[in-house]
Amino acid sequence: MRKPVLFALILTLPAFMQVSRAQNQDSVILRKMYTEALMNPVAYKNLDYLCTKIGGRICGTAKAEEAVQYIKKVMEGMKLDTVFLQPVMVKHWERGTIETATVFSEKKGSVELHVCALGTSIGTGDAGIKAKVVEVHNFDELKAIGRSGIEGKIVFFNRAADDSRISPFEAYGRSVDQRTQGAMQAARLGALAVIVRSAAPVHNNFPHTGVLHYADSVKAIPAMAVGTNDADLLSAWLKDDPSLKLSMKMNCINLPEVQSSNVIGEIRGSEHPEEIIVFGGHLDSWDIGQGAHDDGAGVVQGIDILRIYQALGMKPKHTLRAVAFMDEEIAQRGADAYAEAAKKKSEKHIGAIEADRGAAVPQGFSVDASDSSIEKIKSWKPLFKPYNLWFFEKGGSGADIHALKKQGTPLIGLVTDPQRYFDFHHCANDTYDLVNPRELELGAAAMAGLVYLIDTYGL
Amino acid sequence: MRKPVLFALILTLPAFMQVSRAQNQDSVILRKMYTEALMNPVAYKNLDYLCTKIGGRICGTAKAEEAVQYIKKVMEGMKLDTVFLQPVMVKHWERGTIETATVFSEKKGSVELHVCALGTSIGTGDAGIKAKVVEVHNFDELKAIGRSGIEGKIVFFNRAADDSRISPFEAYGRSVDQRTQGAMQAARLGALAVIVRSAAPVHNNFPHTGVLHYADSVKAIPAMAVGTNDADLLSAWLKDDPSLKLSMKMNCINLPEVQSSNVIGEIRGSEHPEEIIVFGGHLDSWDIGQGAHDDGAGVVQGIDILRIYQALGMKPKHTLRAVAFMDEEIAQRGADAYAEAAKKKSEKHIGAIEADRGAAVPQGFSVDASDSSIEKIKSWKPLFKPYNLWFFEKGGSGADIHALKKQGTPLIGLVTDPQRYFDFHHCANDTYDLVNPRELELGAAAMAGLVYLIDTYGL
Repeated sequence: MRKPVLFALILTLPAFMQVSRAQNQDSVILRKMYTEALMNPVAYKNLDYLCTKIGGRICGTAKAEEAVQYIKKVMEGMKLDTVFLQPVMVKHWERGTIETATVFSEKKGSVELHVCALGTSIGTGDAGIKAKVVEVHNFDELKAIGRSGIEGKIVFFNRAADDSRISPFEAYGRSVDQRTQGAMQAARLGALAVIVRSAAPVHNNFPHTGVLHYADSVKAIPAMAVGTNDADLLSAWLKDDPSLKLSMKMNCINLPEVQSSNVIGEIRGSEHPEEIIVFGGHLDSWDIGQGAHDDGAGVVQGIDILRIYQALGMKPKHTLRAVAFMDEEIAQRGADAYAEAAKKKSEKHIGAIEADRGAAVPQGFSVDASDSSIEKIKSWKPLFKPYNLWFFEKGGSGADIHALKKQGTPLIGLVTDPQRYFDFHHCANDTYDLVNPRELELGAAAMAGLVYLIDTYGL
Repeated sequence: MRKPVLFALILTLPAFMQVSRAQNQDSVILRKMYTEALMNPVAYKNLDYLCTKIGGRICGTAKAEEAVQYIKKVMEGMKLDTVFLQPVMVKHWERGTIETATVFSEKKGSVELHVCALGTSIGTGDAGIKAKVVEVHNFDELKAIGRSGIEGKIVFFNRAADDSRISPFEAYGRSVDQRTQGAMQAARLGALAVIVRSAAPVHNNFPHTGVLHYADSVKAIPAMAVGTNDADLLSAWLKDDPSLKLSMKMNCINLPEVQSSNVIGEIRGSEHPEEIIVFGGHLDSWDIGQGAHDDGAGVVQGIDILRIYQALGMKPKHTLRAVAFMDEEIAQRGADAYAEAAKKKSEKHIGAIEADRGAAVPQGFSVDASDSSIEKIKSWKPLFKPYNLWFFEKGGSGADIHALKKQGTPLIGLVTDPQRYFDFHHCANDTYDLVNPRELELGAAAMAGLVYLIDTYGL
């Protein structure tokens, strides 16, 4: 009676032990990757240069090109198998030197507001614009007021982000239409310009920029963001004096498109060089900060994955490719150019990972892929437990890799703690000194670990 | 055959529905608590006053007493059922006005280091101390060098915290003995003074203070901390010039003990007023920063739990007690006084929660209690999922509530993300502006939710 049990055990054990041995080896490799990331702050130093020596770098500008050359130089210095620039035609918008807004009230006096131009806004002309202000909180309200109440005025969009949302991204998502669509909607009713409460669940006076969309069928009008505290102030003054006037002036300008680049570096795969795992973030950033969290971090973390492989002497089976994408902020042309080139060259991407949610402490991964790929990634959760990664869910990935979805590539976003993100997002506060080196490094290590598992087991 | 099944269903459903209804109600209450915490930044404003108007407040000092009076006033303004001061005798150490250290090398020149006195260190006297330096990394090394190599010298403890540890608390824990025991161990071998690398896995020039322990049997010698970057510098200079001299001067001083206070405010329980749930943090802080993360945050979060109950019109069954403990940093006298008073008055504490790990984003709770209490708290995990709490584990609680363990009280520590904590800990960088309001509020809400569940279901 006992023999069959023993026999079954003998048959079973080796399989069990194999799994266990593989898991142990994976654990050891992940631990080495984390140690390498935490002990050698190369990514943090690269971010320092990108942020403090180059700084804000919206696509089309000289700063963006300086960043392209810098990242190319960094990659070339690593002796990767391939480093190249991928051409991308981008819009070219310059902020100019003037962006001011002053409130004039006969009752209350005058006050200058903390403002900045929204990305791709037209300027006001040298004379500026001075007009009465109509405060609204959504497009229904705007339409209800109608042309008679809007024409010849400045529209003030002042719907606050909802602080009670646990996810600040949700709060942002529900207020950002004022920034993206406000100018277009107000122009339809004859507004002269718009001033928009910063789309962020914060209370300070950093105005938050970000792209707006004009419609071909509607006249473009100037649009600026105002700090949330000053939005509250303007609203309070308007209650006291509905006929106050706002004077605004901006000399931002849209110029002809120019050629820019994605920067790409790779380690060729030892077994399947034709199959690619791509990762990184976007190199362009808004111009009023240093583009540290958004998204210098993602760029240097992507490069650090390659560095970690080199430092540990690891040879990937598949080709590993770090990309610094150009133009996430305005029109995602870098994303499109990358996906088109991949299609043209019939490249097979077996996985794409983007880090573009700020360099806060990593929580896990959001996966936009087939159910079986999602389950596979979830099965690796225990390997990441020692590193406090707990979020492994279906969800969005990143704007720069999203264009690969049509090609069937499993897409993954590094999820980081979101609570501080809108302290930095699209404002002057997005600076190198507000990135914590450990948090940046933990993000690079988490992605390196995931790349290793995809390279080893596929998706 | 179908009837028994139906019958079973009829019997089962109401019980199932009851559970579900209770869970739903709990979810609704937690959501209200979170909204209240996030929408009304009272805790953040209280922290502002405590940090920027009062500032650093080590026990025994005038600043600590100012803080006691301020917190009492805040609690009195809330119209709680009881507000009182609980007397605590504390040590009184003053940092003084001078703390300098300068390296003199005939070969390399001279350089001033970023230093501060360790808490309760004696001063150097007006003449200061100037002597050769012996660098060591642990007590074994110190003993191996022995009296002949140590006598008449300054010992430089320079074991770095291990950056590769995922938990910075672990890195700290493995390096902090140099700070707490270094002076005592070096004095045994005749050292004149010690200079200790800051116990923190960071690379900057904020020296980190913290308490040291002298032994009655050994002569007290002066002890200072040096920033980690300057520790590296001193080490490099010593390699080049082993006979360099360090000149140090401090006029810190130990004075007679004084009376101070724990500050206590409570809402009396409607059903079991004699049973208490206690929560809070410590009011004293190191003097070189503002005591924002450590631990003004815990104090204002504790008070916010009572405010949330009031704002939502909730009447707890058990007595809820917020405590601002005095003297966590030097000798935990407030913790002892609180536990002794509880014992004397035969108070029954059904739960104690401390927030003293920095006001970063909350991860969950560390529970020091019976297995059944731990399981009960783990069973509430799904209720906290919408708030991204994922850590519910057996572990340490907090230094201020630990003395209640002997009385059988279940002890709980709010666990927050630790990655940035040693950027602030015990140094000049622990300031109000480095506390994020949302993270502070999420911590208060998490504790309020736990208090509600303990009040409703016990532990």
